[in-house]
Amino acid sequence: MSSSPHSVPPVSPLAPEAIRLQLRTWPDVEAYLQICRGVILPLGSTEQHGPTGAIGTDALTAEAVALAVGQRCGVLVTPAQNFGMAEHHLGFAGTMSLQPATLMAVLHDVILSLARHGFERIFVINGHGGNIATCRAAFSQAYATAAARQLPGAERLRCRLANWFTAPSVMQLARELYGDREGHHATPSEIALTLHLEPSLEQVQRPLPEAAPAGPIHGPDDFRRRHPDGRMGSDPYLARADHGARFLETAAEALSADLLAFLAA
Amino acid sequence: MSSSPHSVPPVSPLAPEAIRLQLRTWPDVEAYLQICRGVILPLGSTEQHGPTGAIGTDALTAEAVALAVGQRCGVLVTPAQNFGMAEHHLGFAGTMSLQPATLMAVLHDVILSLARHGFERIFVINGHGGNIATCRAAFSQAYATAAARQLPGAERLRCRLANWFTAPSVMQLARELYGDREGHHATPSEIALTLHLEPSLEQVQRPLPEAAPAGPIHGPDDFRRRHPDGRMGSDPYLARADHGARFLETAAEALSADLLAFLAA
Amino acid sequence: MSSSPHSVPPVSPLAPEAIRLQLRTWPDVEAYLQICRGVILPLGSTEQHGPTGAIGTDALTAEAVALAVGQRCGVLVTPAQNFGMAEHHLGFAGTMSLQPATLMAVLHDVILSLARHGFERIFVINGHGGNIATCRAAFSQAYATAAARQLPGAERLRCRLANWFTAPSVMQLARELYGDREGHHATPSEIALTLHLEPSLEQVQRPLPEAAPAGPIHGPDDFRRRHPDGRMGSDPYLARADHGARFLETAAEALSADLLAFLAA
Amino acid sequence: MSSSPHSVPPVSPLAPEAIRLQLRTWPDVEAYLQICRGVILPLGSTEQHGPTGAIGTDALTAEAVALAVGQRCGVLVTPAQNFGMAEHHLGFAGTMSLQPATLMAVLHDVILSLARHGFERIFVINGHGGNIATCRAAFSQAYATAAARQLPGAERLRCRLANWFTAPSVMQLARELYGDREGHHATPSEIALTLHLEPSLEQVQRPLPEAAPAGPIHGPDDFRRRHPDGRMGSDPYLARADHGARFLETAAEALSADLLAFLAA
Amino acid sequence: MSSSPHSVPPVSPLAPEAIRLQLRTWPDVEAYLQICRGVILPLGSTEQHGPTGAIGTDALTAEAVALAVGQRCGVLVTPAQNFGMAEHHLGFAGTMSLQPATLMAVLHDVILSLARHGFERIFVINGHGGNIATCRAAFSQAYATAAARQLPGAERLRCRLANWFTAPSVMQLARELYGDREGHHATPSEIALTLHLEPSLEQVQRPLPEAAPAGPIHGPDDFRRRHPDGRMGSDPYLARADHGARFLETAAEALSADLLAFLAA
Amino acid sequence: MSSSPHSVPPVSPLAPEAIRLQLRTWPDVEAYLQICRGVILPLGSTEQHGPTGAIGTDALTAEAVALAVGQRCGVLVTPAQNFGMAEHHLGFAGTMSLQPATLMAVLHDVILSLARHGFERIFVINGHGGNIATCRAAFSQAYATAAARQLPGAERLRCRLANWFTAPSVMQLARELYGDREGHHATPSEIALTLHLEPSLEQVQRPLPEAAPAGPIHGPDDFRRRHPDGRMGSDPYLARADHGARFLETAAEALSADLLAFLAA
Repeated sequence: MSSSPHSVPPVSPLAPEAIRLQLRTWPDVEAYLQICRGVILPLGSTEQHGPTGAIGTDALTAEAVALAVGQRCGVLVTPAQNFGMAEHHLGFAGTMSLQPATLMAVLHDVILSLARHGFERIFVINGHGGNIATCRAAFSQAYATAAARQLPGAERLRCRLANWFTAPSVMQLARELYGDREGHHATPSEIALTLHLEPSLEQVQRPLPEAAPAGPIHGPDDFRRRHPDGRMGSDPYLARADHGARFLETAAEALSADLLAFLAA
Repeated sequence: MSSSPHSVPPVSPLAPEAIRLQLRTWPDVEAYLQICRGVILPLGSTEQHGPTGAIGTDALTAEAVALAVGQRCGVLVTPAQNFGMAEHHLGFAGTMSLQPATLMAVLHDVILSLARHGFERIFVINGHGGNIATCRAAFSQAYATAAARQLPGAERLRCRLANWFTAPSVMQLARELYGDREGHHATPSEIALTLHLEPSLEQVQRPLPEAAPAGPIHGPDDFRRRHPDGRMGSDPYLARADHGARFLETAAEALSADLLAFLAA
Repeated sequence: MSSSPHSVPPVSPLAPEAIRLQLRTWPDVEAYLQICRGVILPLGSTEQHGPTGAIGTDALTAEAVALAVGQRCGVLVTPAQNFGMAEHHLGFAGTMSLQPATLMAVLHDVILSLARHGFERIFVINGHGGNIATCRAAFSQAYATAAARQLPGAERLRCRLANWFTAPSVMQLARELYGDREGHHATPSEIALTLHLEPSLEQVQRPLPEAAPAGPIHGPDDFRRRHPDGRMGSDPYLARADHGARFLETAAEALSADLLAFLAA
Repeated sequence: MSSSPHSVPPVSPLAPEAIRLQLRTWPDVEAYLQICRGVILPLGSTEQHGPTGAIGTDALTAEAVALAVGQRCGVLVTPAQNFGMAEHHLGFAGTMSLQPATLMAVLHDVILSLARHGFERIFVINGHGGNIATCRAAFSQAYATAAARQLPGAERLRCRLANWFTAPSVMQLARELYGDREGHHATPSEIALTLHLEPSLEQVQRPLPEAAPAGPIHGPDDFRRRHPDGRMGSDPYLARADHGARFLETAAEALSADLLAFLAA
Repeated sequence: MSSSPHSVPPVSPLAPEAIRLQLRTWPDVEAYLQICRGVILPLGSTEQHGPTGAIGTDALTAEAVALAVGQRCGVLVTPAQNFGMAEHHLGFAGTMSLQPATLMAVLHDVILSLARHGFERIFVINGHGGNIATCRAAFSQAYATAAARQLPGAERLRCRLANWFTAPSVMQLARELYGDREGHHATPSEIALTLHLEPSLEQVQRPLPEAAPAGPIHGPDDFRRRHPDGRMGSDPYLARADHGARFLETAAEALSADLLAFLAA
Repeated sequence: MSSSPHSVPPVSPLAPEAIRLQLRTWPDVEAYLQICRGVILPLGSTEQHGPTGAIGTDALTAEAVALAVGQRCGVLVTPAQNFGMAEHHLGFAGTMSLQPATLMAVLHDVILSLARHGFERIFVINGHGGNIATCRAAFSQAYATAAARQLPGAERLRCRLANWFTAPSVMQLARELYGDREGHHATPSEIALTLHLEPSLEQVQRPLPEAAPAGPIHGPDDFRRRHPDGRMGSDPYLARADHGARFLETAAEALSADLLAFLAA
């Protein structure tokens, strides 16, 4: 349906402020919906990222990538959901986690809100692996509710999960820069992105002993016992702010392509 | 108990970055807990604010006040919960609302996460009237769970809700500046604060016709019928960015005093 | 809409029995709905009220005020919900509490039942401060469900919470009679009303030592530690049955005015 | 364990007021628990009872039987839960129903409250067939939670459901008085009991046409279609107030024996 | 409505495979629904059945009876729900239980799925007493949701619970064969049926000491204390495989009559 | 911890019946737990599988693979959970789906039941892609509850999801046999396995037109519109029963290795 609103990406990128739903008015959104039915929702987490990584890493990176993608594509970006499913990190101070059922309800309600207004393509840019399962489950629940409530656009509602850190080009860049030392949590790639975004984080970086190897994830006590400093096989000291700029660029490019394909589908 | 950790406010204010939990590491938080058991949680909403107000007004203002209070008092500020209970605003495009039961679960989980780490004073700085009831209910649920789970600090856990916009000094300033035209939703005081925080919002401001008067709040269709442009008795065109700076200062001062009293209690 | 059914308060007060939904038949209710779309729901609590106060104080008083208001205005009164949100009183024997989520579900279901029949103005007369937050949250949830289920009257459904003990005239009478010794829980005003309603309670009244001062409310263990006999700054021995009669009259008058305004709105 | 507190029924019946938890203080309850660990919880419903039956029949009768049993046995009676599971009666105006999940939560919370204080024998006197399934399910949930929370008395907690209208002696009396015309809903036996309790109900009684026969119960629309006036095979015009007195006496005697056996077990 | 699809039982029994929904395709089901709107759902449990009884007894027997009934009547049989509400058996290794609220949700969702396709008569063949209450509650919840979602067949949806072990002819056969030694859990009748279905179970049978007598059921610890080997007054060593064949036949006959009556109603 | 019970796989494979929890007694399970703390849980789904595929495909295959793995490794297999998360297939008759929240609760309760008995390695063998997300979310919820309830083995509890159809050797075999025509739903590989298990299914197989291509999955109406006969890019007519035997063998070998590694970890 090439003539449907959501298949036509706006001609020119919007100004940085114009892309943030937070900074727009409701008549702006009504007008936007005449042109585009797509929207980007950044999904983060607030959890330990090793001895030198910022607790907000997953939310900061998800939102940064979302804004970069939004600006490239001219698609609105909602505020970030800063808390995600991080139960397994609760053994480390500062982690704030939603239970899976709670995160599912949050995403469900937020998607239903958007669908009510006529949004039909919800593109979730996610910064945390632990959110993936719950997010997918939430999509199913949202489709079911939209149908049960007989929302006008229920049949056209589509959600997609885009994890910036698993985009092939991002993973390849991480491999090139860090090889095996990328690891699986508190990775240099995500830390690099935070250094780019928040220069004050530079001062905390320092060499760290070899990290415990990555492994399957269970409850918080098990996690802490097996990963005593919170890292999973990663060497975040390899991270550099200029790497972060490249990760942002790479992720934005990859996810923008995904988003445009999603809007056109 | 004047010698308990949470009763001793840190001697000197922390640097702006140091106050944000997002930018700290888990060992930082462990160390912080030796000195202070208090934490600030900004609670916003993402909802229409009239034809010229930013949809993110309540989250932007709550977070700004929270950071100002945190810096004055040397108390950590968590990321904001950007989505709140705004069911009655769902008749306007762009509003994203959590159902009361969902917001209750979010606050419950987040408070329990913090309590697990040893936080004992949770100070919620709220930017949206619609969150108040649910937030209070969530506190009760959180106390009950903390006791049922036999958390070590269950008996000492205390939560407090601080609405920046109802602080007496803030309300007085609004009365001085705007008199009756302050209204009850999309008020010039909150709009002023957003103009101070986000100068790009200036360009959307314009004179508006008389707003529909404030009244009790029911479902979304009823709300839109009675408040066709989303405002409740307010004249946001009175807002000025320099007013916003004063509101921020006034709110920060008032809530800092509340917070210090709360920590010392 | 001055001609709508709910805006026309019935001409003459009904007989005492006629006002109680419990004593009416379903055809009675169908006929009533032709004339009035309003209904009163008494909401109580079953919780400790200090060493000399009845555990049922909040339910007894809410129901008594509700019946008095109903009779004055000719508006039906449903049975009382006798259990409320009293988690913080669970440290004292005899307290029976619903968790906030449970009370929210109760009020939600009850309101939806009434809305299904065509009731459009639900006036909750409440006897317990701890119910307020949850009750307001339940209203939002009820509006949302009514809209989602596409109930015919969803757009016209309105709920209002009326706490008899915070009516200005009631608070003024309490101040006149008891000054500072009114306190905040197990207050002489509510005890007086129970003495008026249940004379057998007289025999338990006795002078009590100074009560612990009122303060913020947290979990049950914290509450009992700070309020060892359950009172919050109150001197219930000041209560007299004839005061209770005056409180009933005063509350009924104040809330009747509120109700009539609510029906006419 | 003949020496355990709950196995010793108090020597002499308490005064009528003394039996009502609502009229007692928390120290009274603490003292009572030294002697008896049993308590009676009346469970009603608020639902149509045919063209001449009171909507409150099930709550009125459950509470009356509970008070009579309590007084005979010297066992405390809590306030009634007036709303029950009556979804299938929602097709008739005035019915107020809790969804099964909600009623389950109510009973769960109330039982857990009592168990926390040390009550070990919860005797639910029920007036409504529709509550039976949910009530039994709630008992299982309550046992599970009591164990999960490691309540001191979790292992000794026992709940029993006693439906006054299915006590053998009550059913026999109904058969003697009304034979087949007892029916299954809005029965002359329950109506008789309400006439005994509330004489004003006499004036509404009148001969009715033959009722639709009883049958299985499904959703509300199906119920109304098959039972157009709400009755299920009953002839409530046979009810007499003096029958009601006999039903109360008979039920109280039967359930008192059940309760004493339950306390002693 | 004798001409409605569900009132016409298919002329001749289907082949064994043809009766199992698991082995049919979706177009098969669409075609079937033109002829019959009824379906059988076997509901089991996975729980201890004494020292010699199979943990799967309740699911194995429910499914066997369901298939026998389905074949006789030409009515489709869905897969079994193998886990039921067995909280009170959790004190014995191997028991797997759903909480009542969970089982209610399972049955609710499954019934709603079937109703969506046009099934109007859901016949639950149950093998476990502990499921009864929750199953009935789930029916009410399902009717309510079907109506709220405005499913086309909501008004015609009917569910029936059929416990094979309480069919009068089954109970009479048990009495004839085992008298008082039938007991109430891990009964020879159900064990006999498993011996008929799974001959390998023969080898575990052995004489057992007198079982603890049956009694009311509470929490798992209480259950294990009072029924140390899991049996309630039963002597499963009396069970014989040929008895099992007779039980299956008897149950199938009884429940087939029930089902045909249900379909015709 | 090489000496822990779960790290020692039993020396010799058990007999077919001996592997099924359903056919064992509770003392059997107690004895088994002295030797092995692992258990296999088959997770299926009941959903359309194209015009010629059995609705029970996912449950039949998951259970068959589970039994084969269990027998090879000497590890107990619980009954299958036959209903999974298949909301997107509800547009086709016969599909029976649990909402994500319901399936999460089922898996949570079942895992907690097992953990209570001392099982520490829960190996879920899954037959349906739609279950993956919810199953992972359920694991997190289960870990959280086990910790909150302070179960003795909470810290050692580990769950693993094993999808037989995504084992590398299985996917390779499918590629070899069917190339691109394997597709993504109602695939020849899974159909082949059902033909091996249930020969009666042969007779329904027939050539089918080209299937609609696979694509992302959204709500049920969208699914049916885009995949009108239920298949996603697959050609199930390629399936042969002898392929099925090979798939069973291949999957059992692959998952047995996974299971043994999991037990030893």
